[in-house]
Amino acid sequence: MSPVQVTSDRIFVRYRLTGDETEARAKAADLCLEQTVECPADILPKGFIPEQVVGRLESLHELSAPGMPAWEARISFLSDTTGGELTQLCNVLFGNISLKKGFRLSRLEDRGTLWERFKGPRFGGDGLRALLGQPCRPLLSTALKPMGLSAEELAALAGCFASGGVDVIKDDHGLANQPFASFVDRAERCADAVRKAAPTGRRIIYAPNVTAPAGDVHERAHFAKRVGAGALLICPGLTGLDAMRALADDDSLGLPILAHPAFLGSFVTSPDSGISPYALFGQFMRLAGADATIFPHFGGRFGFSLDECREITDGCQDALGNLKRIFPAPGGGMKLQRLPELLEFYGREVMFLVGADLVRNGPDIKKNCEIYRTMIEKH
Amino acid sequence: MSPVQVTSDRIFVRYRLTGDETEARAKAADLCLEQTVECPADILPKGFIPEQVVGRLESLHELSAPGMPAWEARISFLSDTTGGELTQLCNVLFGNISLKKGFRLSRLEDRGTLWERFKGPRFGGDGLRALLGQPCRPLLSTALKPMGLSAEELAALAGCFASGGVDVIKDDHGLANQPFASFVDRAERCADAVRKAAPTGRRIIYAPNVTAPAGDVHERAHFAKRVGAGALLICPGLTGLDAMRALADDDSLGLPILAHPAFLGSFVTSPDSGISPYALFGQFMRLAGADATIFPHFGGRFGFSLDECREITDGCQDALGNLKRIFPAPGGGMKLQRLPELLEFYGREVMFLVGADLVRNGPDIKKNCEIYRTMIEKH
Repeated sequence: MSPVQVTSDRIFVRYRLTGDETEARAKAADLCLEQTVECPADILPKGFIPEQVVGRLESLHELSAPGMPAWEARISFLSDTTGGELTQLCNVLFGNISLKKGFRLSRLEDRGTLWERFKGPRFGGDGLRALLGQPCRPLLSTALKPMGLSAEELAALAGCFASGGVDVIKDDHGLANQPFASFVDRAERCADAVRKAAPTGRRIIYAPNVTAPAGDVHERAHFAKRVGAGALLICPGLTGLDAMRALADDDSLGLPILAHPAFLGSFVTSPDSGISPYALFGQFMRLAGADATIFPHFGGRFGFSLDECREITDGCQDALGNLKRIFPAPGGGMKLQRLPELLEFYGREVMFLVGADLVRNGPDIKKNCEIYRTMIEKH
Repeated sequence: MSPVQVTSDRIFVRYRLTGDETEARAKAADLCLEQTVECPADILPKGFIPEQVVGRLESLHELSAPGMPAWEARISFLSDTTGGELTQLCNVLFGNISLKKGFRLSRLEDRGTLWERFKGPRFGGDGLRALLGQPCRPLLSTALKPMGLSAEELAALAGCFASGGVDVIKDDHGLANQPFASFVDRAERCADAVRKAAPTGRRIIYAPNVTAPAGDVHERAHFAKRVGAGALLICPGLTGLDAMRALADDDSLGLPILAHPAFLGSFVTSPDSGISPYALFGQFMRLAGADATIFPHFGGRFGFSLDECREITDGCQDALGNLKRIFPAPGGGMKLQRLPELLEFYGREVMFLVGADLVRNGPDIKKNCEIYRTMIEKH
């Protein structure tokens, strides 16, 4: 065995492990084997594999938090165990260990050179601001819904939102390729409606949902670009994270990407297992090329806490290799009367995703949008 | 709006909802909206959308189980909400609701015609038996490991396993395209070693791991076929379920598929959230084309219960549309002395996945394999 091409570069990952110190140390040792060689230490050949390939416990310290005792383990992995591929990176970080209880991935550390091998967000927050010509204020976005409307009806709605100055108008993530409104028909009509209705001098972006069967994501994305879509929406939990990465890396496409969290909730529902919202909705989404990451804001239809929302925002913005910072995009039952509180909480680096409230606040959708936009512009 | 192409076919799905009856009813109503139109009922246009597109609570009954009260809700969805696509089917079944607590998808009912739109497993258990020429007995499989070995070393190990008569020899799911052993080099050498070492008259299959970046899965699978691989291993939690479906549906490929559960554990770690092992590792894997589904057996390195293992086995075999039955493939720390108990538990329709124990039971790997095989053949 001559691992001549192998470098010694390592990534550093923090996990939350439950139990007393003995249990936590056993869990850490287990994790180091399970995520790499996947077999007991005693059958490994001596040398390179146990010394380099097996994960390494770098430090362990007790976390002070209510409930069951828990520890933070810093574990390092040889970067080459990932082969530089996002699929295998996810496997090393949380593949088998996802099947065991009491292991939670809490964050990727900004160390090592592996993160630099991922291009990440093509635009990032700053790039999206430049595209929209909005250098300072929070961005406003909305979703075309409900599923079941025809493409014409969705396009009419898109036109109303655009005329009211909503910056980013996305498909609801449940609009796929149903007989009610096929992808092709919908994307073309909505892009057209948004272009025609946008106030003079304002750049408004339409983002169709390209979540699709494995062979169709690329094709739908390029179709969307041809008919004038200004961004893409995708649910990486449904397509695989790497399908989003492939869109972001496609130089012939070059569109901003909004990531939707559908089907990913199980990773974050237990505090003792899964992946932290910081890592999953912040760091993983950036590694996989999202320019904005959608998540449910505290107090809406979903049960995310304020701490979790803050975590996600931090995960969007904290340094990680050369990855650009991206927009947190809180949504899920947002209401006009909460906007002051939301502006206070998120500051300016945010894209608000408002759905039903833009339709429900009064009969004139354009006017409802203008009220929102005015409040945001005043901030 | 003229939904002329829409059919009235519906799918029926069971969810476990926690809480008292009032809470369970509220959760069911929420689910019906959240998984389809994703907005409050009061802003929906009258007619087709609330009557057909919104999910429908068909029945609700209390579950008798220890702990918090829980209910089984049977919910039906218009099949056309999925557009016939696996990605959007997963979204309708568990997209947004994954982000809320107290909702668990427990099973898909064998009703409606949607399941027939998925080809599912190309081989299924019977097809795999026919390929291997093993009509009756349980199958034996193993994994090439540890990561860090060179392609030559892995091929030598593959040869030992083949000479010992292991039916299916798969890459460890952590072998991707690392500098230690590139995919191309490894697949070619291991396929060759297995072919040369197989006992006369025995069909032994090598299954390389084609878990790969989005654009590379197809290419690696076809390369594997060209060099003589007899099956494919993939981790649909890493690539997206639909990437596996695309491999299964590829007529120019035509290889059996083994599904590995890496990165999917968070769906099953909480009894109150996520997706049941029955649905996830049984039904979903079949819908997505797996011919065998790997999962951690009770009492090994992982924390799965006997009930969960039985659930998965049932999910592999219970009727669902025209989908073929597939092999449950329990693994994860299997030991020779447990084989009688395992044979008793699973019966004949099983593929045992034995890893380290084939290497550790004695210095002669070929002989270790033969001991296992003999015990299985006697059954």
